[in-house]
Amino acid sequence: MEKYDLIIVGAGPAGLTAAIYAGRYQLKTLVVGKLPGGLAGEASEVCNFPSYESIGGVELMMKMMGHVKSLGIEIKQEEVDDIIKGKEFKVVANKKEYSAKKIILAIGCERRRLQLENEKEFIGRGISYCATCDAGFYKEKTVGIVGGGNAALSAALLLSDFAKKVYIIYRKDKFSKAEPSWVKKIKKKNIINLFNSNVTKLIGKDKLEKVEINNEKVIDMDGLFIEIGSVPNVELAEKLGLEMEEKYIAVDKKQNTNVKGVLAAGDITNNSLKQIITACGEGAIAADSVYQELRGK
Amino acid sequence: MEKYDLIIVGAGPAGLTAAIYAGRYQLKTLVVGKLPGGLAGEASEVCNFPSYESIGGVELMMKMMGHVKSLGIEIKQEEVDDIIKGKEFKVVANKKEYSAKKIILAIGCERRRLQLENEKEFIGRGISYCATCDAGFYKEKTVGIVGGGNAALSAALLLSDFAKKVYIIYRKDKFSKAEPSWVKKIKKKNIINLFNSNVTKLIGKDKLEKVEINNEKVIDMDGLFIEIGSVPNVELAEKLGLEMEEKYIAVDKKQNTNVKGVLAAGDITNNSLKQIITACGEGAIAADSVYQELRGK
Repeated sequence: MEKYDLIIVGAGPAGLTAAIYAGRYQLKTLVVGKLPGGLAGEASEVCNFPSYESIGGVELMMKMMGHVKSLGIEIKQEEVDDIIKGKEFKVVANKKEYSAKKIILAIGCERRRLQLENEKEFIGRGISYCATCDAGFYKEKTVGIVGGGNAALSAALLLSDFAKKVYIIYRKDKFSKAEPSWVKKIKKKNIINLFNSNVTKLIGKDKLEKVEINNEKVIDMDGLFIEIGSVPNVELAEKLGLEMEEKYIAVDKKQNTNVKGVLAAGDITNNSLKQIITACGEGAIAADSVYQELRGK
Repeated sequence: MEKYDLIIVGAGPAGLTAAIYAGRYQLKTLVVGKLPGGLAGEASEVCNFPSYESIGGVELMMKMMGHVKSLGIEIKQEEVDDIIKGKEFKVVANKKEYSAKKIILAIGCERRRLQLENEKEFIGRGISYCATCDAGFYKEKTVGIVGGGNAALSAALLLSDFAKKVYIIYRKDKFSKAEPSWVKKIKKKNIINLFNSNVTKLIGKDKLEKVEINNEKVIDMDGLFIEIGSVPNVELAEKLGLEMEEKYIAVDKKQNTNVKGVLAAGDITNNSLKQIITACGEGAIAADSVYQELRGK
């Protein structure tokens, strides 16, 4: 069983920044994450990561992964199935076991689903959670976006460069949650806002063909992009018996959880602002806390 | 008197990231800072800002300033002399007055000085606080660096590419405060470590010529770079009656101080880790807090 000083679970901005700091501190570190780049990698366009006026989510996260690898740290693209507390921690992923003195959970969030019939079946056949990944498939087509936050509006903007017509389907009566910069940018001829609107049915035979709104109106659509936020990946946290605040891991200012040796960083924590830059900051703090404690021994 | 939603005092990583977020939120924002880029701009080499394996401090901070300006936000390179509380805040800089609903103090730190005779007189004549700025002047010369943290070692490494001989003069018996990565890198033929050593005198006529160590040994040196940390710029904070913890501004998780409408971010706060990435995270949180509160009105 390979032994590490630190295993970081999650390969998004928080996990990768923790790895960069751990690497600079020359801790023996392993990163295990099922989604390289995390949800940030699915962002169509990132405009608020300082020093980049505009960069694709994939490109930014590829740079961070390169940064981690340049420090000699391995990133395993695997899902962690279990973490067992003992004298050291035992981490189980892809039927292999690893041991670590410290764990940083940077397990982030998953996309929230509409929870409608056909939603799962139509993924890749009209239903998408990633405009960056799938926009290219909808050239000259009609698409919808569900949601009204920054992610939804930036997805709409991206899709409007490909699709003939883009509907934004939003439950509220205005875009009160999005940055005004995005609200301004989506004022385009081929973007149509449908406020006070909820998707009530996904209609189609083998793939999405129509979308029903508010149980009445039916609109022909080739694709529907769902951007209604995310829910924390709490499973591992619950297994470890971590103290939670609502659905997020409670951390102190040094990113410690209530279980000694387990820290958390990024979207999974109870810190209020969920941004790439704040997740990075938390990752750095978590790795520094690990280093200070291991060095103290 | 020009009116703003937000005036950010300080143009380092925290202030500039706060400005980027404020810009994306379309708040009417002004940045006033005497040192564009802050102390980060004086870093010889930055290796732990996620996505850049290695970048000069000046280059990174120029990118951040460009990012801020691309959002239409002005950065005034001026020192703020006073901030007066009232219905709104009045900010005085370079004999002009500006008003703002909210203030973010991102005023960082200043370099700590040796407090020796001749130190001030020899600045620019052998004494420097910025290897990035001044390394080029010491080709084939002999220089010293005072300090043993990351900044000192990265400065030594940079200088070793120019100077004939580089002494690192450090008061402790080993580099216990620096990242092991730096400690490894400075193992070079022309770098000589002097441990348990304090500079006790700066000797020279019109410029630095020799350095006395531990009141006994005298070494010929053309230049001496002082990298012994920094002290917070507390003056404005004290004028505003902010609650301090030791010499740093006490902030809550949303970067609020005890004075309503005044927030703080970056090296000036009582958060424990002082890094570019953590300062950026704090700046983002501060701007978000300002936006949430102004929008709530």
